[in-house]
Amino acid sequence: MNPLAIGIDLGGTRIKAALVRRDEGFVVEQACDTEGVHGPDHVLDRIADLIRSIAAKAPDETVHGVGIGAPGAINWERTSVVQPPNLPGWGVVNLREALQRRLGKRLPVFVENDANLAGLGSAHYGRGRPYPSFIMITLGTGVGGAIIHDRTIFRGTTGAAGEIGHMTINFAGDIDRYGIAGSIEAYLGQKYLSRYGRHKLLTRPESAIHDMAGQDLQDLTPLMLYEAACRGDEPAREILGWAGHKLGVMLGACINLLDIRKVVVGGGLSAAGDFIIDAARKSVREYVIPDHRDAIEIARETLGNEAGMLGAAHLVFQFLDEKAGKSPA
Amino acid sequence: MNPLAIGIDLGGTRIKAALVRRDEGFVVEQACDTEGVHGPDHVLDRIADLIRSIAAKAPDETVHGVGIGAPGAINWERTSVVQPPNLPGWGVVNLREALQRRLGKRLPVFVENDANLAGLGSAHYGRGRPYPSFIMITLGTGVGGAIIHDRTIFRGTTGAAGEIGHMTINFAGDIDRYGIAGSIEAYLGQKYLSRYGRHKLLTRPESAIHDMAGQDLQDLTPLMLYEAACRGDEPAREILGWAGHKLGVMLGACINLLDIRKVVVGGGLSAAGDFIIDAARKSVREYVIPDHRDAIEIARETLGNEAGMLGAAHLVFQFLDEKAGKSPA
Repeated sequence: MNPLAIGIDLGGTRIKAALVRRDEGFVVEQACDTEGVHGPDHVLDRIADLIRSIAAKAPDETVHGVGIGAPGAINWERTSVVQPPNLPGWGVVNLREALQRRLGKRLPVFVENDANLAGLGSAHYGRGRPYPSFIMITLGTGVGGAIIHDRTIFRGTTGAAGEIGHMTINFAGDIDRYGIAGSIEAYLGQKYLSRYGRHKLLTRPESAIHDMAGQDLQDLTPLMLYEAACRGDEPAREILGWAGHKLGVMLGACINLLDIRKVVVGGGLSAAGDFIIDAARKSVREYVIPDHRDAIEIARETLGNEAGMLGAAHLVFQFLDEKAGKSPA
Repeated sequence: MNPLAIGIDLGGTRIKAALVRRDEGFVVEQACDTEGVHGPDHVLDRIADLIRSIAAKAPDETVHGVGIGAPGAINWERTSVVQPPNLPGWGVVNLREALQRRLGKRLPVFVENDANLAGLGSAHYGRGRPYPSFIMITLGTGVGGAIIHDRTIFRGTTGAAGEIGHMTINFAGDIDRYGIAGSIEAYLGQKYLSRYGRHKLLTRPESAIHDMAGQDLQDLTPLMLYEAACRGDEPAREILGWAGHKLGVMLGACINLLDIRKVVVGGGLSAAGDFIIDAARKSVREYVIPDHRDAIEIARETLGNEAGMLGAAHLVFQFLDEKAGKSPA
């Protein structure tokens, strides 16, 4: 059996959907604006429309269910989002019920945290395929993470495991948006890395960033650092290397705790790939016990932001396997 | 069925064994000197003698197997110790084969890391019983740890998960015996905490420790700090509180990653319990994401070092369950 499912990425500005065939991945993709300003009911109507529209592209086949990725907390049953940070004003919304009501049938619907789905998508369709277990890191506005264990999401006690971005690596460091001192997000989050870059570059007039980032480097972004680094800008490379060092420190702590030595790095900033990752590969060895130094691999996700939709659809395939009594892998 | 098994604690100076009945715990205990200086074969003979001797105390009943706890690395199959740090000169020793040969029968034998077994013992016989999943911390000469998930040991990829003591909380901190900067062991390990206490107290002449720890406080130990703290010594309490703060920082990182919010603290230094643990309860809240602040519990193990032998015997009961097709819990 090579079933079809729909994977959805519920973003703050766009809702993206993909029809996914288990063994091949994407069949077709479609998207619309979220229009979150009109409130949950309006957005739910739009998701239902998108599901109908994309399901219609497989007229002769059953679509077995819908997986939905959203940032923030998800309940254990995978039915509801809990105050998704990209949709202000939403409380707890049971997406399964709301969509089943709109679609007029008991189509299986599963909701999961977007970083977890990036990991699950990577595990089954992306760079994570060779690894039964790995740590997923997503570098974007913030730093997200997931633990993939035996090709499934390690969920912890309430479904909220994998908050890697808020693990501290320096208890006396700067605080992040959750008030946690020295978390990896307080080094690699877009705002924090930009600020560090600005301060470092103010006294490095030779950097090309000065021509890119406006007055006093106020407009500096991590992507500018990446672009400059690609063109050989030494100060930009140093800054990305500094960030990669911190990433490696944090991965070392994770590897000691989990004994999972494979890492996949995704998200927008992962484009800055090797400048960050090479430094992480070096520092991680300094922060793991000697027995763990071997067999560490830090790889870059190749799927881009698509990984999440594939992971979302895979939740449905996993459900079909469980129903059929197969092991989750 | 309420079967019997033998749990063994393979220490550097003593080998301790217990006959354990599944539903009741300890039936009888026995111990002998390790005499490790005579090499592996001699120690294996002594373990076999101890097994025969303690099994003879249940003449009319089957002993279903032997679990053995040892420090350091264990192979995935749970047959062998790999260079146990308390038995210098041992390489990889297959305890299962060696003991089956000596005992002349195919008695099930399982080896596991001692901190993991302290966790498993706590999960089934100790303070961890109310918690399906929890983080075990053992405070002794070093800092050990284990992840108990769904009442079993989370083993990672090679069986070496739970090296919590070497997770860094300060990438620029002092290095531990594995060369890892700012690991929790570099704060709470016996040597490190003693040194910190010494430096702090040299300018605190009012502390009672000056009468306990010899010239220039050279003989200071964490247990002295605990004893003085119990008698109301303020400087000693401050030092243990400092240590507890660091413990909480590290637990915060673990809780963010695992979403496992229950913690059991065991090991010799856990006697210093509330002075350390109260501070950890406070600081842990500062180092977890807001959603994780609730439902955190940090409890003290009540079994003492016995927990490991009970966990060792439980490996056998778990094996019996798996053979019978039951879930591991």
